[in-house]
Amino acid sequence: MADETKQLARFIVESRWSDISKDVRHEAKRSLLNWLGCALGGSNDPAVDTALAALREFSGPPQASVLGRHERLDILNAAVVNGIGSNALDFDDTHLKSVIHPTVPVAAALASFVEKFPATGAQFLHAFILGVEVECRIGNAVSPAHYDSGWHITSTCGVFGAAAACGKLLKLSEQQMTWALGIAATQAAGITAVHGSMSKCFNMGHAARNGILAALLAQKNFTSSERGIEAPRGFAHVLSPSCDLNAITDGLGASWELSENAYKPYPCGIVGHAVIDACLDLRTQHSIAPDAIERIDMRVHPLVLMLMGNAVPATALQAKLSVHHCAAMAFIFGAVGVKEFTDACVHDPAAVGLRARVTALEDAAVGKEAAGVSVTLKNGTKHEVYVPYATGSLQRPMSDADLENKFRALAAWGFSTCNTHDVIELIWSFDNINDAASLARTTVPSAAATV
Amino acid sequence: MADETKQLARFIVESRWSDISKDVRHEAKRSLLNWLGCALGGSNDPAVDTALAALREFSGPPQASVLGRHERLDILNAAVVNGIGSNALDFDDTHLKSVIHPTVPVAAALASFVEKFPATGAQFLHAFILGVEVECRIGNAVSPAHYDSGWHITSTCGVFGAAAACGKLLKLSEQQMTWALGIAATQAAGITAVHGSMSKCFNMGHAARNGILAALLAQKNFTSSERGIEAPRGFAHVLSPSCDLNAITDGLGASWELSENAYKPYPCGIVGHAVIDACLDLRTQHSIAPDAIERIDMRVHPLVLMLMGNAVPATALQAKLSVHHCAAMAFIFGAVGVKEFTDACVHDPAAVGLRARVTALEDAAVGKEAAGVSVTLKNGTKHEVYVPYATGSLQRPMSDADLENKFRALAAWGFSTCNTHDVIELIWSFDNINDAASLARTTVPSAAATV
Repeated sequence: MADETKQLARFIVESRWSDISKDVRHEAKRSLLNWLGCALGGSNDPAVDTALAALREFSGPPQASVLGRHERLDILNAAVVNGIGSNALDFDDTHLKSVIHPTVPVAAALASFVEKFPATGAQFLHAFILGVEVECRIGNAVSPAHYDSGWHITSTCGVFGAAAACGKLLKLSEQQMTWALGIAATQAAGITAVHGSMSKCFNMGHAARNGILAALLAQKNFTSSERGIEAPRGFAHVLSPSCDLNAITDGLGASWELSENAYKPYPCGIVGHAVIDACLDLRTQHSIAPDAIERIDMRVHPLVLMLMGNAVPATALQAKLSVHHCAAMAFIFGAVGVKEFTDACVHDPAAVGLRARVTALEDAAVGKEAAGVSVTLKNGTKHEVYVPYATGSLQRPMSDADLENKFRALAAWGFSTCNTHDVIELIWSFDNINDAASLARTTVPSAAATV
Repeated sequence: MADETKQLARFIVESRWSDISKDVRHEAKRSLLNWLGCALGGSNDPAVDTALAALREFSGPPQASVLGRHERLDILNAAVVNGIGSNALDFDDTHLKSVIHPTVPVAAALASFVEKFPATGAQFLHAFILGVEVECRIGNAVSPAHYDSGWHITSTCGVFGAAAACGKLLKLSEQQMTWALGIAATQAAGITAVHGSMSKCFNMGHAARNGILAALLAQKNFTSSERGIEAPRGFAHVLSPSCDLNAITDGLGASWELSENAYKPYPCGIVGHAVIDACLDLRTQHSIAPDAIERIDMRVHPLVLMLMGNAVPATALQAKLSVHHCAAMAFIFGAVGVKEFTDACVHDPAAVGLRARVTALEDAAVGKEAAGVSVTLKNGTKHEVYVPYATGSLQRPMSDADLENKFRALAAWGFSTCNTHDVIELIWSFDNINDAASLARTTVPSAAATV
């Protein structure tokens, strides 16, 4: 009888910090730096304000920080809000194999959790690495059928990652960790119908919160299935038309999914990044003014249009899932940052006009990380470019310096008084930090609450 | 384009108390009486104690009662615990068409909710009736494929019911109610792999809590899909291999699902009730002593064995899903109440021995609410009985007096100092009560907190 849930539980419980290579540890820091920037950049997003307005009067003791803000909530509610905020800009990382955005659910859970349950920086990193491992391996097992059928995979798998990470810090027994994964399995939720609304980033916060809850319940011996993942009516079979459970256990401990994590240079759906690279490239190479453009034609993988095929986005949120808008922004502004996905830019007449001149064609021969774009000018000239790999892909990764720059830009956008130098230093030295709660606390504006 | 979500939202928003017939109002009171008894009976269940131990230090202000206990939690956490407690004994009601246990998610949400957001008894009953309507209609639309594929339908549909009910009390606009249903859709969760563990009743509490959250978020204009139920990547298509969306809107307002609610005379899986009736009948008619029994043979619908086919239950929870145990208890004790599903009875050597003499055969010709049982005695005598409809079925409903007796027995089991007379009177006159919070408060042991 298959026992993937128990094998995973045993792996999490038995894993030691010394099992983790230097490279994986460093990738964990890169992931956290990228994530914390996203959280600060998104800390004033309307979704965060709205969630706080709804949750505040039901929150427990002020145990944990809301990143980049002065509010404090109990750890469960803080995880919800921090999950929402750090995903709000759609600027977080991507595990390309599963299309999971791995850091948000695990880090939003951990950052709140360690404000109540003390841990060292190394313990935090270790738990984070394990959480991402669990989340992505479960995602691999149900990919691609699970996402294709409408599940928001980051949310459905993220709850396992958050449970594993917090359970590791709680030093759960193998039995308790098995239950924690079962409690995670029965909370797995999140559908992609809500993409384009605030509920998309809610899914991430909800997963982070529910993962913490799974670990807390299991610690008190709240029982669950022993086979929450692989049982006939367990997560994998119920939530996916097909699955390969071997992907959960094959090479467990030998390879690390975090090594395949990718970071976004642009704050929108990752499958649109090659289009942006291509458009920026065309604009720069040929000094193209937007007014000179007759039409823009792009060839992209079918998935790109499934995820980002909205030709007439009506809101900033919808624009993040519109390759048409991405192309228009690249040509109009020569940059595609957070500002280019504000309502002001979405409704800009120049943007509306240029989006209408974009034609996007599916082409299964084009890779998911690639794009071919041709621009035809009103004078009849036509320029073409093919981008095989987008910036930020595994083949063209962002450097540590790129990530630092991205962090500074995001902090400037969402939390301008942030001491970015200190936060960046904190993260690069996080394995030597005594109190992992400093991660959240350094981002709190109030002088009294900072370290 | 289909717009079931909006149609449901409009229906909830526009519904008036005067639209509800006397019969449906009375059935709502019957449902609440049955539910509150279950909540009191289950108030000291280990699942409740364990959940409280885990949640207590993260709970917000003491806004709402834990039924039958002195603890007070914020309304969201109270709903979790009350959902767990009122389902813990598996004694709550059943909407037979969908196999949803309709009252727990909606009533656990409302009972906590009205302690913070005041409502009259009539408003509570109205919201409850609407919540059950929404929950069961969505369940009808995805039945039977949804449950058959491993979804805990009470949990996945209950979250909609709780959202609708609390949203009604918040007087959400049609737009907000549409979002509330979308936020419910993206939280829909709960798999049957966890049945037989504490996580089964957690699913119910989680649904109640998440439904409240959906309403609270929507009230603050936290956006979601406009088509959370019927969108291609919405609830119905993602969580069910097949669905009939017409079941959501056909005859909306003309018929009421609550009219088809059924109450259990025995605290175990409902599909085992006809077996118990048959065994009790055989025992009484033929004065059969358990030691005289050579073998018990039953013929049941295949669903019965799928849901309750555990021949060797190891725990009280597992015994509730074992027709073998049900039959043994009926013959040994001549009664099948809460006591017969305690660990003591499960491990009783007489029970172990008699369960081993039970043979259960699938027979698709036997109705889901029927059972044929034959008992062969050691002296060679054989007696048979066929029960076409179990006690508590729509064809043989429990009377108001039966429900009062059940309430008293459950209160005596879980909360012996309860003034059952007053609580029963309160519920029968609930449409004339000014403060619906009295429902929860009358069940609190502390003198100061009772009405």
